[in-house]
Amino acid sequence: MKIYKYPNSEDWDALCKRPAINSNDLNNLVQEILENVNNNGDEALFDYAKKFDNVDLEQLAVSSIEIENAKNSVPQKLKAAINIAKNNIQIFHQSQKEPALKIETMTGVECWRQSVPIERVGLYIPGGSAPLFSTILMLGIPAVLAGCKNIFLCTPPDKEGNVNPAILYTANLVGIQSIYKVGGAQAIAAMTFGTETIPKADKIFGPGNQYVTKAKELAQTKGTAIDMPAGPSEVLVIADQTGNPAFIASDLLSQAEHGADSQVVLLSDDEKILEESITQLNIQVEKLPRKDIAKAAIKNSRAILLKDIDTCVQFSNNYAPEHLIIASDNADNFIDKIQNAGSVFLGNYSCESAGDYASGTNHTLPTNGFAKCYSGVSLDSFIKKITFQKLNKEGIQNLGSCIETMAEAEGLFAHKNAVTIRLKSLENV
Amino acid sequence: MKIYKYPNSEDWDALCKRPAINSNDLNNLVQEILENVNNNGDEALFDYAKKFDNVDLEQLAVSSIEIENAKNSVPQKLKAAINIAKNNIQIFHQSQKEPALKIETMTGVECWRQSVPIERVGLYIPGGSAPLFSTILMLGIPAVLAGCKNIFLCTPPDKEGNVNPAILYTANLVGIQSIYKVGGAQAIAAMTFGTETIPKADKIFGPGNQYVTKAKELAQTKGTAIDMPAGPSEVLVIADQTGNPAFIASDLLSQAEHGADSQVVLLSDDEKILEESITQLNIQVEKLPRKDIAKAAIKNSRAILLKDIDTCVQFSNNYAPEHLIIASDNADNFIDKIQNAGSVFLGNYSCESAGDYASGTNHTLPTNGFAKCYSGVSLDSFIKKITFQKLNKEGIQNLGSCIETMAEAEGLFAHKNAVTIRLKSLENV
Repeated sequence: MKIYKYPNSEDWDALCKRPAINSNDLNNLVQEILENVNNNGDEALFDYAKKFDNVDLEQLAVSSIEIENAKNSVPQKLKAAINIAKNNIQIFHQSQKEPALKIETMTGVECWRQSVPIERVGLYIPGGSAPLFSTILMLGIPAVLAGCKNIFLCTPPDKEGNVNPAILYTANLVGIQSIYKVGGAQAIAAMTFGTETIPKADKIFGPGNQYVTKAKELAQTKGTAIDMPAGPSEVLVIADQTGNPAFIASDLLSQAEHGADSQVVLLSDDEKILEESITQLNIQVEKLPRKDIAKAAIKNSRAILLKDIDTCVQFSNNYAPEHLIIASDNADNFIDKIQNAGSVFLGNYSCESAGDYASGTNHTLPTNGFAKCYSGVSLDSFIKKITFQKLNKEGIQNLGSCIETMAEAEGLFAHKNAVTIRLKSLENV
Repeated sequence: MKIYKYPNSEDWDALCKRPAINSNDLNNLVQEILENVNNNGDEALFDYAKKFDNVDLEQLAVSSIEIENAKNSVPQKLKAAINIAKNNIQIFHQSQKEPALKIETMTGVECWRQSVPIERVGLYIPGGSAPLFSTILMLGIPAVLAGCKNIFLCTPPDKEGNVNPAILYTANLVGIQSIYKVGGAQAIAAMTFGTETIPKADKIFGPGNQYVTKAKELAQTKGTAIDMPAGPSEVLVIADQTGNPAFIASDLLSQAEHGADSQVVLLSDDEKILEESITQLNIQVEKLPRKDIAKAAIKNSRAILLKDIDTCVQFSNNYAPEHLIIASDNADNFIDKIQNAGSVFLGNYSCESAGDYASGTNHTLPTNGFAKCYSGVSLDSFIKKITFQKLNKEGIQNLGSCIETMAEAEGLFAHKNAVTIRLKSLENV
């Protein structure tokens, strides 16, 4: 961990830089996968399963027997934990529902917005060493709450053609209708264009490696929406003298174990806390099964001493972290100063893993500085708000001449005429 | 206008297709503009002004004298109309503010979202034959209401190096701090990277030609958010026997005059209304200054007879129009069946131009079928919602073992340890 003491504010931008990801090289490869799936549908997906997942699949869709078996094989203790998390996530996302609010902007002119679910929602869950069933909770629960009609999930099979039982159990639990054994860029391609088996999605959600990320970027140019642009996960911890170095170290390591490219930043106005946290981190890391990954991430990480907590918050706003932990008994004092962050963890008992799994907030969050302009996933991500307006005769009479004047000034006489013709019809009554 | 009578539902997808836009050819050209502006800043912008706008600019920023002159030259009547529109748009967008709602998902676990303005917001207003000051109202008003700190606008200068007074007047009126004389892809490039004069934007808004659209698409891959993907403007009118053919024709023409690529669709269950609307359209179009544009658009447009209004709404949901007009005295009956639309105009007196200018709703809306997955611009477009969570000692004690179990099942032991270390510290107290 590199330590910086009281860096000049001119150096902040450099200290906030994430490692550049060169994704241009992937462009042709991923474009080719998209085209192949668009042209050849399921056949291309079976081919890629053989090529990338080393498995000869008989069918893409997970069967109901596989789901029943999964239900039986997930340990009771894990089921109970998933249920608690599900409940909290439901409560918080349910609270995000907004009733339509009718506003009369002028007499006879009513305007409102109505929340309508996005119909076809495709979720992607990566494979790899760990089964990310928590992400299914984070995406599936708001999709179901929003009322999306068709919710389906793609995830890569293992070499035996199976999907981890915890994935199947959780998907079934939250109400996802269909699960397909397709991974990588080809899964995104399938949901972008639709195949014989896999429906076309209106919007695609979920994390993934650089191929998946590139495929989502390209999907966006083909008429499909995506949750948000992706980058390596990151945490920024702000600690004052009331922070607990052992806790802080454990939070930094939670992030560091995600991947060698994870970003971990510690800010403090207290040199002792900063140093003790690093000492704790060096002790704790040795006990981790994923210590090699964590150590690699920590190598690129930064501990920065600043003159006070206000300055730390300013730096953090400049960095715009995905996760922001305020390790302080006085965390509440800084809430209103936070400008850019995905999700914020207040006080010494709000560890990042609480939000990663079970507090109720969503863990699909903007990385790579995108917290400056994107929100994390929420119920909002699964709906669109359609605006409505209704003018009655009095309304068009009140507003008509204003519209006529503006349309004429913009040189749009048909726009003007649509009003004039209505106003005239009312004169004649 | 092509007429289709009772088409089979298998043919709907073809009838809902928009003309394909091949934007790949622009990729290299626009990429080059982006790189040039990124490398050479203001100098590149002055060069492009010479090349594309035929003007030798002395400075990029509009001066306060130019703004004062504009204020004096906009006619009083237009000022009054703009003021009425501004007021309605403010009322409706103000109503979209959401207070933070604190939820206790479990005892000791509080979660909420806080709306925080996006700091740096760049607006683009195209030049051309008409000064689109109405779009400044639609983008500037919610930006100011949201509390965005830095709101700036780029718009191309004319050959004399001037900007239309109505643009300057409106921008100043709504509170936009800076206006720059830069147009096209180079304006988007400037706001994406920042130059000596023009700030880098966190999010870019506004319409434009195919170069601007491509530049916005590329800006998104450089870390800047955009309002939404763009396509030609479109309207779909559903009319029953209570619709007024002259009004319907005027609405179809409002859309058709936008551009030769505009999309205009008329659906009805009443053959007489359908035919009379087309007759009216052929009469009204002859009187329009932009009749050549309107006629070209109408050539590619469709009138479709369907068996009932429910079927019309189904077709419309499949089409997902930017603007949807329900030309019927019974429009309210169909509100809950509308799944996909940008903005909806209910009844015979709610013409599209009301929403284009002054009813209060936003006119920056999803085109090209994107209404399936995108909302139009609203106050939400200028904020991000940051999630917060606060666990106290009781909270982590209630939720701790759930998190530990889930983290372990995902193989993330540092995540588990962040909880364990806190739980242990509480046992010892």
